[in-house]
Amino acid sequence: MDRQKALNIVKEQLTDHRYIHTCGVMETSVLLARQYGADEKKAETAAIFHDYAKFRDKDEMKKLIEAEGLSKDLLEYNSELWHAPVGALLVEREVGIHDMQVLDAIRFHTSGSDHMSTLDKVIYLADYIEPNRQFPGVEEVRRLAEESLDKAIIKALQNTILFLMKKNQAIYPDTFRFYNKLVLEQRR
Amino acid sequence: MDRQKALNIVKEQLTDHRYIHTCGVMETSVLLARQYGADEKKAETAAIFHDYAKFRDKDEMKKLIEAEGLSKDLLEYNSELWHAPVGALLVEREVGIHDMQVLDAIRFHTSGSDHMSTLDKVIYLADYIEPNRQFPGVEEVRRLAEESLDKAIIKALQNTILFLMKKNQAIYPDTFRFYNKLVLEQRR
Repeated sequence: MDRQKALNIVKEQLTDHRYIHTCGVMETSVLLARQYGADEKKAETAAIFHDYAKFRDKDEMKKLIEAEGLSKDLLEYNSELWHAPVGALLVEREVGIHDMQVLDAIRFHTSGSDHMSTLDKVIYLADYIEPNRQFPGVEEVRRLAEESLDKAIIKALQNTILFLMKKNQAIYPDTFRFYNKLVLEQRR
Repeated sequence: MDRQKALNIVKEQLTDHRYIHTCGVMETSVLLARQYGADEKKAETAAIFHDYAKFRDKDEMKKLIEAEGLSKDLLEYNSELWHAPVGALLVEREVGIHDMQVLDAIRFHTSGSDHMSTLDKVIYLADYIEPNRQFPGVEEVRRLAEESLDKAIIKALQNTILFLMKKNQAIYPDTFRFYNKLVLEQRR
C-alpha cells in the first residue's frame, strides 16, 4: 500500500499526538530495518498501522478477544496490551492487509513473545525509541540500538518490567518470555 | 523427626555460615506458620532441610536433574536454583522424609511456583527475612510480613527480579508466574 494512503487511513483512527508518534515509529522502523536486515517496506507498513486499534472501545476489544479466540489470558492482564493483537485482527479485516509478517509485528509490538522475528523486534524497538519518546532510560536504549538490536530491547524490557513492578502490576507472560529468550541467547 | 536430630543431620551438609542461616529460617518459619496458619512442625522440618543440597557438587546436581526427570529447563537457568528441587529429592532419599508438603516447601523455596501452599510461602519468606539476612530492602519485607504474607512475598519477588535484571540474568519462569499469581490475586 502507498505510504500516504496508509497514513491517511490511520490518521482517522488516532489522536494528533498518537499520529505524530506513529510517524516517528515509521521513520525509526525504516532505519532499524535497514540497519538490522529486515524488509524496509514491511517495517514501514507495520509501523504505520501498529497503533491502529489504540483508541477502540475497551468493550469492543474485549468482545473481539473472546469471539476471535485471541489468548484469553490477555483479559487477566493490563488492557493496554489489547490494542496490539486486536489491531492485527482489524488491520487485516478493515484495511485488507494480509501479510502475516506485517500483522505479527503489529500483534507483538506491546507484549513481545518468545519467537520474535527481526521485523517484530524492529517495530517493538522503534515504538520504544522513536524521537518523540521522552522518559527516563530512553536515551540509553537509543544508544544501545546503534550497536545491537537485542541488547537495546533487553534494556527496554528491563525498564518496562521495572515500571510495571513499581506499580504492583503483573507482567504479561509473553513479555517475560521475550526477556528470558534474549538474555539466554546473549549468554550462548 | 526430633528437632535436634534433624539439625545434626543438616549441620554436616552445611558451612557454619549456612547452618546459622538455617537456624534463623527455622525460627522465622515457625513464627510465620503460627501467624498465617501453616503446620508449625512441618514448617520447622522444611526449614531445617531447605538448604540440604546447597553445597552438593554442580555436576552431581546436573546429573540428578537429568536422571530423575526434574524440569529440564532448570539447566538453562541459574544453577543457584538447582539445590532446591535436588534438595527435595535427596531429603526424601537420604534422610527418609516422605511428607510431600515438607518436600514441596523445600522444592519451591528458591524459584517459587504458581501453586504455592501457605507452608511453601512461609518457607520462601522465612528464607528471605530470617534475622541474619542483611541486604537492601529486607527491612521493608520484614515490615510487610507483619501484615500480609502475600504482600511481603510480592515485595521480595520484586527485589529478586530487579536484582537478576541488574545482572542481565534470566528470570526463572516459575518465579515470574509466582509473582503474577500473587499480584493478580491482590487485585481481585
